[in-house]
Amino acid sequence: MPRPSASRATARPAYFVSDSTGITAETLGSALLANFPGVAFHRHTIPFVDTVGGARDVVRDIQAAAATGAVPILFATVKSAEILAELMASGAVVVDLLGGHLRELEAALGSTASEQLGQYHGVGDIERYFARMRAVEYAIEHDDGQSMRALDIADVIVIAPSRCGKTPTTMYLALQYGLLVANYPLTDDDFPSDGLPAPVAPHLDKCFGLTTTPLRLSQVRHERRPDSVYSSLAQCTLELRRAEDLYRRNRVPFLNSSTKSVEEMSAVIMQSMRLRS
Amino acid sequence: MPRPSASRATARPAYFVSDSTGITAETLGSALLANFPGVAFHRHTIPFVDTVGGARDVVRDIQAAAATGAVPILFATVKSAEILAELMASGAVVVDLLGGHLRELEAALGSTASEQLGQYHGVGDIERYFARMRAVEYAIEHDDGQSMRALDIADVIVIAPSRCGKTPTTMYLALQYGLLVANYPLTDDDFPSDGLPAPVAPHLDKCFGLTTTPLRLSQVRHERRPDSVYSSLAQCTLELRRAEDLYRRNRVPFLNSSTKSVEEMSAVIMQSMRLRS
Repeated sequence: MPRPSASRATARPAYFVSDSTGITAETLGSALLANFPGVAFHRHTIPFVDTVGGARDVVRDIQAAAATGAVPILFATVKSAEILAELMASGAVVVDLLGGHLRELEAALGSTASEQLGQYHGVGDIERYFARMRAVEYAIEHDDGQSMRALDIADVIVIAPSRCGKTPTTMYLALQYGLLVANYPLTDDDFPSDGLPAPVAPHLDKCFGLTTTPLRLSQVRHERRPDSVYSSLAQCTLELRRAEDLYRRNRVPFLNSSTKSVEEMSAVIMQSMRLRS
Repeated sequence: MPRPSASRATARPAYFVSDSTGITAETLGSALLANFPGVAFHRHTIPFVDTVGGARDVVRDIQAAAATGAVPILFATVKSAEILAELMASGAVVVDLLGGHLRELEAALGSTASEQLGQYHGVGDIERYFARMRAVEYAIEHDDGQSMRALDIADVIVIAPSRCGKTPTTMYLALQYGLLVANYPLTDDDFPSDGLPAPVAPHLDKCFGLTTTPLRLSQVRHERRPDSVYSSLAQCTLELRRAEDLYRRNRVPFLNSSTKSVEEMSAVIMQSMRLRS
């Protein structure tokens, strides 16, 4: 997805370098860089740097980038001291996201760190993989009220009007935590009665509601069906008010998705429903 | 999902405490703890600790845990110095995953860190949210060859025999990177010809193949249909050999999913297909 960024010539290069997927380096490095809103960064994620040769390729890239402007910043999650030393010799400012903390832990635990970092392929991982795979399949089958087949085994049922963020939140909970998550759309048909819609009513204790702001909902719906009743501010206002009334009447916990990321919504739902992965 | 763990009495408590979702604290903290395979840890993730009062609740928990055994380890991603100070006073060994690195960056950038850490709700985030939402919907619509409607806009088409990991990998790429990812199952019908299956053949440059080991595939299929031809080792061996031949003949890049996590597979695919989020 394209993102607005300063031109390469003026931006400071930021590298996220990992001997594994690079996701942690990128996540934590980006959170740290967010503290410097006045600086433009040009970001590069380089995963699977797990050989000295691989590190040397990265160093060549960095030195080419450095030749054109500011000193690059490099966030590293690599376990090998030899590979880290190569990266350090690049001339970039290296932020070692692992090493220092490992020394702290060694001191606290009175034990020497092994070389196991990044090795996650024991039996527990295969079980975790099965659980996630089942969870994603369950989520697809039970997306948007398509199937009511196995609601009795759901960990959570996310309910909300159309376009409040049910589907991405459901998928995130399934993939990240391996939870069985169904979702059910609240439509005009669901509001005349006081209780929850019939298919989910027997599972009240598993329900979690989403809401948003009318303006945000109208924008999102406009993307799908421009200039329709469905995307009108009046209709969005009405549906959200009815949904929130329904949640309150039935004591369904709910949250407003308009200012939250998918990760945050998922963490709130986990906490509210007292779920553990 | 239950995981094997040592009993609470003998395990050392490990807390992942965050003023946001806790995902980064848990990911990086777990990677660090993996270096100490001889120590059993009892893990707790506590997200959204963003007030001093919230921190005091955590401290009470930690002190209760510490009273029964070893000194707890606490991994923190909190931006407020005041909250961090509360946590430090708990008696736990606190590993501050942010603070020290922020000081390093301040020195490197010659600039003072703002208090923006964890605030991710600018316009870029809404765009990112839209992109992810569209990507997840696209992935659901195009899962398992269900729809061929919009393959021309796909960023990647994952192809593989049934149960090689197409669906979780597809969802992860969509959710994490906002990419448009379709997937297509290779069945016995697809092997008599030399080329790719007709629906995906026009998109050869977007295809990425998955394979696994016959034993692993047989185990996974056995979960779905025990004691069937489908899950037999002979059938699995045959399908994988044919799939790998197909990939090689058509120069489709592919990887073996048997020893890789969903995150690793996604990162390899991103790199191989030269995709950027």
